Amino acid sequence: MSDAPRLRILVVGASGELGRAIVAELSPRHEIITAGSKSGDIRIDIADPESVAAGLTAAGPLDAVACAAGAVNFTPLGAIAPASIAQSVYGLGLANKLMGQVNLTLAARDILREEGSITLIAGVLADDVIVAGSSASMVNGALESFVRAAAIELPRGLRINAVSPTVFEESMAAYGPFFRGYDPVPVLRAARAFSKSIEGRQTGQVYKVI
Amino acid sequence: MSDAPRLRILVVGASGELGRAIVAELSPRHEIITAGSKSGDIRIDIADPESVAAGLTAAGPLDAVACAAGAVNFTPLGAIAPASIAQSVYGLGLANKLMGQVNLTLAARDILREEGSITLIAGVLADDVIVAGSSASMVNGALESFVRAAAIELPRGLRINAVSPTVFEESMAAYGPFFRGYDPVPVLRAARAFSKSIEGRQTGQVYKVI
Repeated sequence: MSDAPRLRILVVGASGELGRAIVAELSPRHEIITAGSKSGDIRIDIADPESVAAGLTAAGPLDAVACAAGAVNFTPLGAIAPASIAQSVYGLGLANKLMGQVNLTLAARDILREEGSITLIAGVLADDVIVAGSSASMVNGALESFVRAAAIELPRGLRINAVSPTVFEESMAAYGPFFRGYDPVPVLRAARAFSKSIEGRQTGQVYKVI
Repeated sequence: MSDAPRLRILVVGASGELGRAIVAELSPRHEIITAGSKSGDIRIDIADPESVAAGLTAAGPLDAVACAAGAVNFTPLGAIAPASIAQSVYGLGLANKLMGQVNLTLAARDILREEGSITLIAGVLADDVIVAGSSASMVNGALESFVRAAAIELPRGLRINAVSPTVFEESMAAYGPFFRGYDPVPVLRAARAFSKSIEGRQTGQVYKVI
């Protein structure tokens, strides 16, 4: 087989547990541009559509956009009242983790090189639910279905997949109490799913890392 | 077996193809209160949280809330630009079919009689996607995961399920061109799934009617 090409990859949310693992996995073989709301080569706040568009333009030519960023609220259902999106507990997840990544996809659609890829972060709560997790479940379920739908409409051979991991071993100190009985995975396994998405040729897939 | 109780059921979106089938299926055995944005015993615009809360209060004591209402945009992905939820093509589906039904759930949580049920409408596009369907896919995926999550947190023995049907035979004149090759189902089959949700004891389920 011929050598695989060296790709130019933007990693959004590069400073977090998952982002660092993605960078560690891909940087030996590819050129990585890091982005985050507070650190990185480029500042991108995914909740701000103008920041997303400006950040992707600033990044220059790209073969792949990988997102490891996205905020949601964890609130017991009993404490959530009916409200408009702007006023709702669900507003953060919808505007940040969901529409932030959707907007990243739409902006990447217009600037990625031919046959480039987009990889989003979803999560196990789409299927396997916890108390106070209804916003995360909603957003992750939305993202999984969105990538299936977007995959069939992306132009120029562009691809899109989602990585949907369970809780990470490295995050159990912080999140363990919310995920009693879940088998945590090393964050490296989620980073490998990003590699499969970016360095493979599949599209419209949800890689469950559980 | 003892006779099943006669339930008091609010059907939101009662005047549509699905809503009429739900009313036809349940009215021989139960008391039905119909609701819609433009017709019905009660006016409820699910996109307006105050209308949802006022409508459920006006309905009086209820054993079940069934929703057959929810609007989304159908727009080719290539025609969708990055934008905030309020400005986005995705905003309608998120505010109407998704948050409208989530708000209906939260309001029903507070007023339903013990062991009452909530049944939401999702759809096949969560899994099986079409061109211009990314908003519908996103919203349906979100709803399927939301009901799984909400089911484990509802108080007083309340239950929640979603019905996720493919295109209806009765709607093929209007929607057929978007669903070439899909096997349509009689709307009666989706109405039966609402009956299973309301008259059974399951919770956290997604009834795929395909």
